[in-house]
Amino acid sequence: MNYKRLDQNDLKTIRAIIKEEERILYGEEINEEYSHDELSDTVSYPDVVVKVISTEEVSEIMRYAYENTIPVTPRGSGTGLVGASVAIEHGIMLDTSLMNRFLELDENNLTITVEPGVLLMELAAYVQDRDLFYPPDPGEKSATIGGNISTNAGGMRAVKYGVTRDYVRGLEVVLPDGKVVEFGGKVVKNSTGYAMKDLMVGSEGTLGIITKATLKLLPLPKKAISLLIPFPTLEKAIRTVPFIIKSKSIPTAIEFMQREVILDAEKYLGKKFPDSSADAYLLLKFDGNSTEEIEKDYANVAQICLEQGAIDILISDTNEREESIWKARGAFLEAIKGSTTYMDEVDVVVPRGSVNEMVEYIHGLYKEVDIRIKSFGHAGDGNLHAYILKDDLSEEEWENKMKAAMDKIYGKARELSGQVSGEHGIGYAKKSYLMESMDPATVEIMRGIKRAFDPKNILNPHKVCQM
Amino acid sequence: MNYKRLDQNDLKTIRAIIKEEERILYGEEINEEYSHDELSDTVSYPDVVVKVISTEEVSEIMRYAYENTIPVTPRGSGTGLVGASVAIEHGIMLDTSLMNRFLELDENNLTITVEPGVLLMELAAYVQDRDLFYPPDPGEKSATIGGNISTNAGGMRAVKYGVTRDYVRGLEVVLPDGKVVEFGGKVVKNSTGYAMKDLMVGSEGTLGIITKATLKLLPLPKKAISLLIPFPTLEKAIRTVPFIIKSKSIPTAIEFMQREVILDAEKYLGKKFPDSSADAYLLLKFDGNSTEEIEKDYANVAQICLEQGAIDILISDTNEREESIWKARGAFLEAIKGSTTYMDEVDVVVPRGSVNEMVEYIHGLYKEVDIRIKSFGHAGDGNLHAYILKDDLSEEEWENKMKAAMDKIYGKARELSGQVSGEHGIGYAKKSYLMESMDPATVEIMRGIKRAFDPKNILNPHKVCQM
Repeated sequence: MNYKRLDQNDLKTIRAIIKEEERILYGEEINEEYSHDELSDTVSYPDVVVKVISTEEVSEIMRYAYENTIPVTPRGSGTGLVGASVAIEHGIMLDTSLMNRFLELDENNLTITVEPGVLLMELAAYVQDRDLFYPPDPGEKSATIGGNISTNAGGMRAVKYGVTRDYVRGLEVVLPDGKVVEFGGKVVKNSTGYAMKDLMVGSEGTLGIITKATLKLLPLPKKAISLLIPFPTLEKAIRTVPFIIKSKSIPTAIEFMQREVILDAEKYLGKKFPDSSADAYLLLKFDGNSTEEIEKDYANVAQICLEQGAIDILISDTNEREESIWKARGAFLEAIKGSTTYMDEVDVVVPRGSVNEMVEYIHGLYKEVDIRIKSFGHAGDGNLHAYILKDDLSEEEWENKMKAAMDKIYGKARELSGQVSGEHGIGYAKKSYLMESMDPATVEIMRGIKRAFDPKNILNPHKVCQM
Repeated sequence: MNYKRLDQNDLKTIRAIIKEEERILYGEEINEEYSHDELSDTVSYPDVVVKVISTEEVSEIMRYAYENTIPVTPRGSGTGLVGASVAIEHGIMLDTSLMNRFLELDENNLTITVEPGVLLMELAAYVQDRDLFYPPDPGEKSATIGGNISTNAGGMRAVKYGVTRDYVRGLEVVLPDGKVVEFGGKVVKNSTGYAMKDLMVGSEGTLGIITKATLKLLPLPKKAISLLIPFPTLEKAIRTVPFIIKSKSIPTAIEFMQREVILDAEKYLGKKFPDSSADAYLLLKFDGNSTEEIEKDYANVAQICLEQGAIDILISDTNEREESIWKARGAFLEAIKGSTTYMDEVDVVVPRGSVNEMVEYIHGLYKEVDIRIKSFGHAGDGNLHAYILKDDLSEEEWENKMKAAMDKIYGKARELSGQVSGEHGIGYAKKSYLMESMDPATVEIMRGIKRAFDPKNILNPHKVCQM
């Protein structure tokens, strides 16, 4: 594609649209953080960062960019892990973080309509204060809701409540040519044409720019309790999961964790984890509207765990203990990052019944490829996070060993009928693995879909399925 | 489009692919039922009906049809209401009803993989016998699961459990050119490229032919109980719904019904409805794993209903009573059809908070347009079914009045931020209403998506967004 390089004339038009100079960063004014995201080593600067505050501004910028074939990259908090919000072709970066208003809480329809820059933690707190509940709970609470929608973020409550897509009812979207459309709405059911809303969710800023989202809420469950369950081995822990899933007591979360990652978290947080009796744990959470209801559920599941070889059942029924456990869990990514010089991640998802095989395989790679790999993840939904650590390897050793480990992990995931990403997306960094794992016919259709939205390929080029 | 008209040569190739002559119907051998669906007045015969039994057959037929630009229409049980399975351009009809095998029940992953011709009632019974649960529950139990997926069928348990899309994990799809691809899989979470699985669901046989579906199951709830709640007026009944939704006791179903429709059902079934005390009812269902749990839920909701003016709370806790109520509910469509000479339907969905306004508006049309209209529907999810009755009107009067009523109903739904179809789809019959209600930019993108899958437009032409 022959993109137009941004010049002073373009900047003049942008200034005319945006009016407030402090919302435009150009050249040297652009902070280093705008050149990358939270993890991937994809680095590229936009020519200009525009901090938009309205749908109209987004629409006008897009119309101008479309007419002039200037690439545009949308960005929220920049907490992504796969380079989806990096401006590979430079051009305009649309920072949506100032579009952070709560527009409407509709208690009759149990929906909330927000701008895309609202942070996940702000949204969760806002609805909780009103006795309502937004279930998706990814680890990164300072991500924007626009970013969560763009990656179809999953998180820790997916076992019981599903993922972000399940809570998006309607979207206002600015198309690459600047037109403003609505997909879905407040309606609960919809069989009206193709699933445009669902297609937008998880499209990583390549099909349109989300400027408003109407989200489904639930009544806030009155009680929650966690069980921390030590097992003699990780294998025994994970083998227990299908028995839990089949029981009629569905937890909101089933996480697995190992001592080595817990140690990192203790060091990172400067705080002891509440138990040190075992090498492997399952962490379960239950919620409901009465203590009795939850107690019945967890007693049932505790029994299953003991039958499958659990060492003990630690019930976390105080806020303090609850916080110390989940804070550790929430800190895993940062803690592992802090334990090494550099790292890269895989976010494979495999059928629940194959988690053990996948985890064991990843463990075996430590020896086979001779590189440190730490993992944790969502045992209840088959989504594993494995982090490959650079430590003191040379650049060349790192590149070779990291690529070898990645190839093997993604290959194994394919063998187990898994997918490249459970919740982090493809972005820029995982594209080659997507191409390897996906039928070429499907890739061709995805590119056709991209063309249907963005025939000039100006919106977030080189991401997902675009080479 | 210039389609090739099917000739003897094409028939010879089809015979070579299919081999068993009794699975090919040609010309005069084609039963009248293949020329239409359950309701819409769209009538057109295919040139040949092919009863396929395998993915390979579907693939070979599609490859041949694609190479020769012969239109193909997929069809399950033909229970649709909007003409989606009618062969407008003639050509080949692929009848998938013989592809009705249960391929795998995976108890570790709680999934079942079936062929598209399995009937909804067969699927429900099969998993129930194994203490498992497939929640989607549309009224038409003899629809195929392939048809349910193609319309993203909703049904009566959507309030608590969601719709068909929420239970489709993976699909095997034959593309228009004959290539076989898989979208999704057994994985629970997926952020790997665009949402192809979700896009296929609800695409009404226009993007590909579903040849296998992996569906999510739940553990079977141990108990269910229904409440039949008479109200003095329909308005009072429907005004109660938002209070129920906001309570922490979510029913699986919230249906509304009126005496006039119940009378039709009594006549049709030859069986008395268990109550005759009121003109309007809410019908609620609760499920769970213990009687106490359900009792607490329904006691809570019963209290809400009484506070909002319900006349009584009739608890259906025997199988007999349960059956007599839900059998009446299930018979509404057929019963209304039997009460008139001919009818057409609307399946609008509006935000839950606007159901009352929509229902009142439809009632008012009876006088305004001077035509009988009967309605019932899913109060809990805003999806209304209204049937416009021909009775003894002349063809001309019928056309005029029916169109006038439809225009007004769809216009009102738009005004209330509703959508054309909640669960029946667009097919052929509702296309003009889709075009009126949808942004032209969105229609253009949908057509681009269609082109990405089917550049020669041979698969189910003239449906959904194709003129």
